[in-house]
Amino acid sequence: MCGIIGIYNAGGLEASLTSYNMLHALQHRGQDGCGLAAYTGDSVFLQKNLGLVNDVFDRSELPMFDEARLLLGHVLYTPRNAHNVLDTQPMVMYGRDGFMALGHNGQLVNGAALCDQLQKEGHLFQTKSDAEIFLHLIARETAKTTDFVAGIRTAINQARGSFAITMMVPDKIIGIRDSLGMRPLAIGRLDDHWFLASESCALDAVHAKLVREVEPGEIVVIDRDGLHSYLSPALPTVKKMCVFEYVYFARPDTEIDDISVYSARYHSGQALAAMAPVEADIVAGVPDSATPAAMGYAQASGIPFAQALIKSPYTGRTFIEPGQKQRERTVLLKLSPVRSQVQNKRIILVDDSIVRGTNSLLIVNLLRHAGAKEVHMRIASPPVRFPCHFGINTPSTDHLIGAKRSIEEIRKCINADSLAYLHEEALYKAVLGSVAKGVGNEFESVNGNGSFCMACFNGSYPMSIDS
Amino acid sequence: MCGIIGIYNAGGLEASLTSYNMLHALQHRGQDGCGLAAYTGDSVFLQKNLGLVNDVFDRSELPMFDEARLLLGHVLYTPRNAHNVLDTQPMVMYGRDGFMALGHNGQLVNGAALCDQLQKEGHLFQTKSDAEIFLHLIARETAKTTDFVAGIRTAINQARGSFAITMMVPDKIIGIRDSLGMRPLAIGRLDDHWFLASESCALDAVHAKLVREVEPGEIVVIDRDGLHSYLSPALPTVKKMCVFEYVYFARPDTEIDDISVYSARYHSGQALAAMAPVEADIVAGVPDSATPAAMGYAQASGIPFAQALIKSPYTGRTFIEPGQKQRERTVLLKLSPVRSQVQNKRIILVDDSIVRGTNSLLIVNLLRHAGAKEVHMRIASPPVRFPCHFGINTPSTDHLIGAKRSIEEIRKCINADSLAYLHEEALYKAVLGSVAKGVGNEFESVNGNGSFCMACFNGSYPMSIDS
Amino acid sequence: MCGIIGIYNAGGLEASLTSYNMLHALQHRGQDGCGLAAYTGDSVFLQKNLGLVNDVFDRSELPMFDEARLLLGHVLYTPRNAHNVLDTQPMVMYGRDGFMALGHNGQLVNGAALCDQLQKEGHLFQTKSDAEIFLHLIARETAKTTDFVAGIRTAINQARGSFAITMMVPDKIIGIRDSLGMRPLAIGRLDDHWFLASESCALDAVHAKLVREVEPGEIVVIDRDGLHSYLSPALPTVKKMCVFEYVYFARPDTEIDDISVYSARYHSGQALAAMAPVEADIVAGVPDSATPAAMGYAQASGIPFAQALIKSPYTGRTFIEPGQKQRERTVLLKLSPVRSQVQNKRIILVDDSIVRGTNSLLIVNLLRHAGAKEVHMRIASPPVRFPCHFGINTPSTDHLIGAKRSIEEIRKCINADSLAYLHEEALYKAVLGSVAKGVGNEFESVNGNGSFCMACFNGSYPMSIDS
Amino acid sequence: MCGIIGIYNAGGLEASLTSYNMLHALQHRGQDGCGLAAYTGDSVFLQKNLGLVNDVFDRSELPMFDEARLLLGHVLYTPRNAHNVLDTQPMVMYGRDGFMALGHNGQLVNGAALCDQLQKEGHLFQTKSDAEIFLHLIARETAKTTDFVAGIRTAINQARGSFAITMMVPDKIIGIRDSLGMRPLAIGRLDDHWFLASESCALDAVHAKLVREVEPGEIVVIDRDGLHSYLSPALPTVKKMCVFEYVYFARPDTEIDDISVYSARYHSGQALAAMAPVEADIVAGVPDSATPAAMGYAQASGIPFAQALIKSPYTGRTFIEPGQKQRERTVLLKLSPVRSQVQNKRIILVDDSIVRGTNSLLIVNLLRHAGAKEVHMRIASPPVRFPCHFGINTPSTDHLIGAKRSIEEIRKCINADSLAYLHEEALYKAVLGSVAKGVGNEFESVNGNGSFCMACFNGSYPMSIDS
Repeated sequence: MCGIIGIYNAGGLEASLTSYNMLHALQHRGQDGCGLAAYTGDSVFLQKNLGLVNDVFDRSELPMFDEARLLLGHVLYTPRNAHNVLDTQPMVMYGRDGFMALGHNGQLVNGAALCDQLQKEGHLFQTKSDAEIFLHLIARETAKTTDFVAGIRTAINQARGSFAITMMVPDKIIGIRDSLGMRPLAIGRLDDHWFLASESCALDAVHAKLVREVEPGEIVVIDRDGLHSYLSPALPTVKKMCVFEYVYFARPDTEIDDISVYSARYHSGQALAAMAPVEADIVAGVPDSATPAAMGYAQASGIPFAQALIKSPYTGRTFIEPGQKQRERTVLLKLSPVRSQVQNKRIILVDDSIVRGTNSLLIVNLLRHAGAKEVHMRIASPPVRFPCHFGINTPSTDHLIGAKRSIEEIRKCINADSLAYLHEEALYKAVLGSVAKGVGNEFESVNGNGSFCMACFNGSYPMSIDS
Repeated sequence: MCGIIGIYNAGGLEASLTSYNMLHALQHRGQDGCGLAAYTGDSVFLQKNLGLVNDVFDRSELPMFDEARLLLGHVLYTPRNAHNVLDTQPMVMYGRDGFMALGHNGQLVNGAALCDQLQKEGHLFQTKSDAEIFLHLIARETAKTTDFVAGIRTAINQARGSFAITMMVPDKIIGIRDSLGMRPLAIGRLDDHWFLASESCALDAVHAKLVREVEPGEIVVIDRDGLHSYLSPALPTVKKMCVFEYVYFARPDTEIDDISVYSARYHSGQALAAMAPVEADIVAGVPDSATPAAMGYAQASGIPFAQALIKSPYTGRTFIEPGQKQRERTVLLKLSPVRSQVQNKRIILVDDSIVRGTNSLLIVNLLRHAGAKEVHMRIASPPVRFPCHFGINTPSTDHLIGAKRSIEEIRKCINADSLAYLHEEALYKAVLGSVAKGVGNEFESVNGNGSFCMACFNGSYPMSIDS
Repeated sequence: MCGIIGIYNAGGLEASLTSYNMLHALQHRGQDGCGLAAYTGDSVFLQKNLGLVNDVFDRSELPMFDEARLLLGHVLYTPRNAHNVLDTQPMVMYGRDGFMALGHNGQLVNGAALCDQLQKEGHLFQTKSDAEIFLHLIARETAKTTDFVAGIRTAINQARGSFAITMMVPDKIIGIRDSLGMRPLAIGRLDDHWFLASESCALDAVHAKLVREVEPGEIVVIDRDGLHSYLSPALPTVKKMCVFEYVYFARPDTEIDDISVYSARYHSGQALAAMAPVEADIVAGVPDSATPAAMGYAQASGIPFAQALIKSPYTGRTFIEPGQKQRERTVLLKLSPVRSQVQNKRIILVDDSIVRGTNSLLIVNLLRHAGAKEVHMRIASPPVRFPCHFGINTPSTDHLIGAKRSIEEIRKCINADSLAYLHEEALYKAVLGSVAKGVGNEFESVNGNGSFCMACFNGSYPMSIDS
Repeated sequence: MCGIIGIYNAGGLEASLTSYNMLHALQHRGQDGCGLAAYTGDSVFLQKNLGLVNDVFDRSELPMFDEARLLLGHVLYTPRNAHNVLDTQPMVMYGRDGFMALGHNGQLVNGAALCDQLQKEGHLFQTKSDAEIFLHLIARETAKTTDFVAGIRTAINQARGSFAITMMVPDKIIGIRDSLGMRPLAIGRLDDHWFLASESCALDAVHAKLVREVEPGEIVVIDRDGLHSYLSPALPTVKKMCVFEYVYFARPDTEIDDISVYSARYHSGQALAAMAPVEADIVAGVPDSATPAAMGYAQASGIPFAQALIKSPYTGRTFIEPGQKQRERTVLLKLSPVRSQVQNKRIILVDDSIVRGTNSLLIVNLLRHAGAKEVHMRIASPPVRFPCHFGINTPSTDHLIGAKRSIEEIRKCINADSLAYLHEEALYKAVLGSVAKGVGNEFESVNGNGSFCMACFNGSYPMSIDS
């Protein structure tokens, strides 16, 4: 996962603080590195490095972004131990038409094949990043035509996979979303300034108004004349937004495709209560991601919600090494049981998902050690049984406990008194029903033919995966 | 405020990780500096510096603490802009009887007078820290007697104010609490290892069992024969534990004097709902400290609890400067409204307290900007009208909005539709009723003659303040 | 300027320390950044960043280079304020034939034109670095042929300017020097291990034996079968090694093209004494670069050499800002007069060159302030009158004091009692006569048709400069 | 060893830069830590930490020293692995008369006994530093009298050992030198500003004029009325300045007690040539400390001086670990042979001293490896046969090669063709003859009854060493 932003400064925007705040709001999407590219009308500044937004940008350097008319930003997530400053984005390349900067979120299914083909044609790569592939593809195709957007269209039509992209070329900010809309990309506005961001929470952070999402397959171009939309001539009949954004990844104060992430989780919790009730004294969530679902479960079941676990706010890097014993210690550093809420209680513990199962075991034991009488685990999504090929960093099938074991076996593995998952259909309805009007509204069909990629639960990948 | 720990390692304890985890659990009590002193039987190691626990201790240096038989630790809070590494604790001093190390939490009322007197007798000070005064006092008095504990008793009898202290001398860990018990200090045990810590959450962090609190006026000495208690010959008739620890300062998973902090806050919220009801759509808390009170309010009022505000987990240092406009930006970086929960809602916003009032205004406006129809502020404690002289960093009377303005005036200042505070008696009963058996239990009198220092609310200081 | 290395590890070489020591020995050629790329037979590691060798590589990370069979390293010099981590080298690119890594020292005259042409063909650039241009050129040309070396030859034949290059491709280390041999590149050997380095001092640092320099226009390929030489079919009739390497840039313990840098400077000083004698008490040099020339002057004149100026070894970064007053302070921090050697003395102060003249004025005044009676400046090279287009960072003509003013005017500017420069012919003879057999040997013609680029002195650029 | 400064700012001095430059000039006396204390008339600022001057002070913090009327500074040397920020100086203590700040250079012989006694009287210590002992001693004695200087006199009369001290109390800067004058302390002046500094080079660095040295046993007090001198009533008949300051420790551009360090070394080299001639091709010195002696040897012998070894300017911290093999590598990183000067040469290598002998072996081998035909080691001081108890960090007798072995044995150990040391009397005469009028002047007796501590050479400690 990663997070992307783009800013069109119509003049007068405090560009450095605005871009800083937007990247900060997307920090949860990537903590490995970040960067900002800015165009002043004359030249391009690029500052990027490994580290958090707070580490990479400091007071003395940010002001140089203040005169920027266009800005592009990125927060990077990379698989562990593969950190290299060259992988940070935005990537800026200089070709025949001047510079092109690009930030990317998603994952290509045919990245290796595209890279091979481009290399055969003489293209040289410095990283294994999909962002670099996109830059080369777009450069190749836009060179063949005077219609820049048509060139981009030709380029992305060759790309199979999930992607949301922001680009900066002289005088233009461009937003692109794959034809299934698998990754989110929102459009915001404040006076005459325009914004693109992976999540609407980054728009809120600068008081910009959420205009709408970029549509699946849509290319938006923002220039001095405002926003121009270029829809895919062959509009897909189904949208396949990644449901895991709602389940776990996005920030709860974000809305994606008109659906409130918070509400989606709350409704999932409500549905879970209806589907898998159990007698208990309190309902608790694994903080912070499962808190809304736990509150929904509590509301629907009538069992009081309580904070059984407290999450430490001081959990940046710790000095602790990998290894099973160490991982346990990390969980202990991050999560603490509230004994007064736990002791002698029968607890329904709601989590958003179970991936490997190792953390769940540690947390259940933490509660038992603090005196819990019973721990009933309730998962606000179905078992994760299939690896994601579209940008969510799930492990291979071998390490997915849901792929290898029955629910009863998993229950034993995590030492719970009972275990239940939300059914796929129920999750689907809960998310779809969470139009951004708040919890408690009537159920409404948002989008008759809309739907989600739920491949991690059901294996129905929205396209063939031939690695 | 500060946090203190002491460890008696009976042998075999992984001393470095244990002390690290305990300090990490107390990080909220002081983020300005921290330190560890360790005694191996032969020599004393001292490592301390400005910064967070994660910054000061690193992997390569911690192992040198592993052979320690005794350890003393401290996290430091200091008033802004007064940071100096010499102020970090533990302080270690070498006198006629070898070394003495000391960590301190609290505030002396007669510190300046004691320092003057000691200076007149030839004592030299390197800081203005109360910890250094205690070291000199104790050194002076213990030099006059062969009974070390009696010397400590004579020393602390001269000290007026709040204090909890951990000390390390050759082969002994010592815990001290002032005669009114104003600051907390818990005793923990794991097998033959003994622990002292400001809050019980630090005991949980290392799986130690909370034995009890150090009693007001008690000196505890831990050595190879276990724990020895030395009670004050003249036991006070009232305890005066700082109620603000329950209201705001301590971690919710801590229990102090057998009272669960979480429950105290939850009960306060319940009482607030009974005392100051208002029609609304949702109840929300200012995260994280006011969340339990908001949940209690919601439970008692029957109005659903919702997460209207999300707190960013990436809020270490930011590049933002002081100043009113900047403070607003910092609040925006830390707190985000969940639009789906806020829009068109009448919101009851629960906070733990109002000190200056400036943040409350920013937060109310944040909710209004996100579409809140009404914002009713409910404070789970009385107005803060008097400065604290015992360790809580409240500003002078001039900056306490509760000291200068009526509740209606405050309401206008913070732009709320209505404002109500919890009454003093109700807070008292809510805290006292929160014995560590979980929310929802019957009300029980814990301690017939027990009571709290509530001077910040009512001006009844438990001793005369002649600065 | 920059420094480059390449290592062929035949097995058993302690590759991390070896490459570290070689880069450390070349640190004077570039302090802005550095990097190492290593090939293990399976994969390529790349570590590079802004900063000194000591900062970029640390103990915990270097061991990963130990298994490398091939290593490529670089120290970077960049013009002030243009620092960007993307400019650091080696650059590693992945194309149809796998990876290609490259490190570069020199400057292209037709870089912009080559870049334009390559961009028109679809090549994309991330930097304005000549190194990136070379990678694209070589990739393009080697793709057209199965003879890799022939491809490199075609590529470098298109490049006009000065360059010494080390490359790494699977199983091969390659060294390239431009057809005029303007930049140095030495070949070293230790057992079956082979080394390439900008200066022979880097070979000494790892006890490798200097085999010879790469010849002008030569391509050397080192693989499991040893070193293969590919000479340019059209060998140039003249060599045009940059004379400024001898005058100022290279380390005195280096030998380039069989000429000792130390001896070249010493002989220049001797020649200067013959050409521009003056009565004085002592001869002193501006440390460290002018010390050998000053000693040569002293020897030839019979006037004793003395250390009139001491250079501080603690001159890394200082907190001092740009600006004239500040520059003066920096000189004061770096150089101190030895009063006992200076007071009441008539001093001959030898420097290697005068570029802007500002430092010379500061140093003359420093000596006067310390009591010097007379200061006679003697420069061991001719006036710098023309900008360098081949890699030495001289300023534009406007800032070259030698381009704008007569010698008498310069003398006044720098407040010297007299001023003389070494004549061009004398410098030529002094350098050419300094074959690596030590000071004091007979004059020998090394290379009948050899000569140097002395364009900064005489404007005779060895090729047309059409920026 | 350490370095100390004191500044009396009469008004208008740029105090921050001045103190920074003075500490920077003394950096060679201590690289482990540094600090500055400043008094504005109202309050005392103290900034100190481990690290170099460049690391501890930065641009943003220095300006707070600009308003200071009094400043005290220190650079710290501590034995390896004993680094602790509490040991850094100045130490500032607050007693009955306000603050006292102190910086110290030297070593007490009776430090442990004094500390014991003070502890018995109730004094508490935080470090094992002599500076802290002096502060307690002075506080104790000045409390007994209204005559502050008399109190200091009583205090230092109890201290046995070497010491030079700068102090700051409200409105006064004080300088103290032990009654034998074993450590240096110079007085400087610029307009109405006064300066104290361990070496005169720190005065030169700020263009201040060297007034004179503080005399043995003298206390100088600088206040608004200028400088006041308090001489010891019982003036010693002999001065015992540490001769090793001249031999190795001080900077060559420093003058101590009217003797130029540079000249002392140069004359030592001349004397060495007369005493231990040998046929050779060149004379070289181990840079940087032995360069002047080598030049003196060359002048006297008629054999040309040459730079056979180059010292790298990039030798801050390296990543290299302790251990014999590693030490060899460090020497290789720091020193490089100039092959053209070394090859086939008979070399006289001059060093200032031999302590352990390990480095000498490495350097001789370095020259042999570079082709030296013969290496004749000449040491410009006698064999170090006794440990120093007065502040020079020589090892115990066991590790002093001069204490255990004959000169012939040492010669073999260091692999030299011949080895000779300067005789004690010759060193004495060379130093004494080096009045600060430059090399080449007539020999003059500076101070009829003056002499030096040469105990490291002859065991004649100037006072009894017990414990």
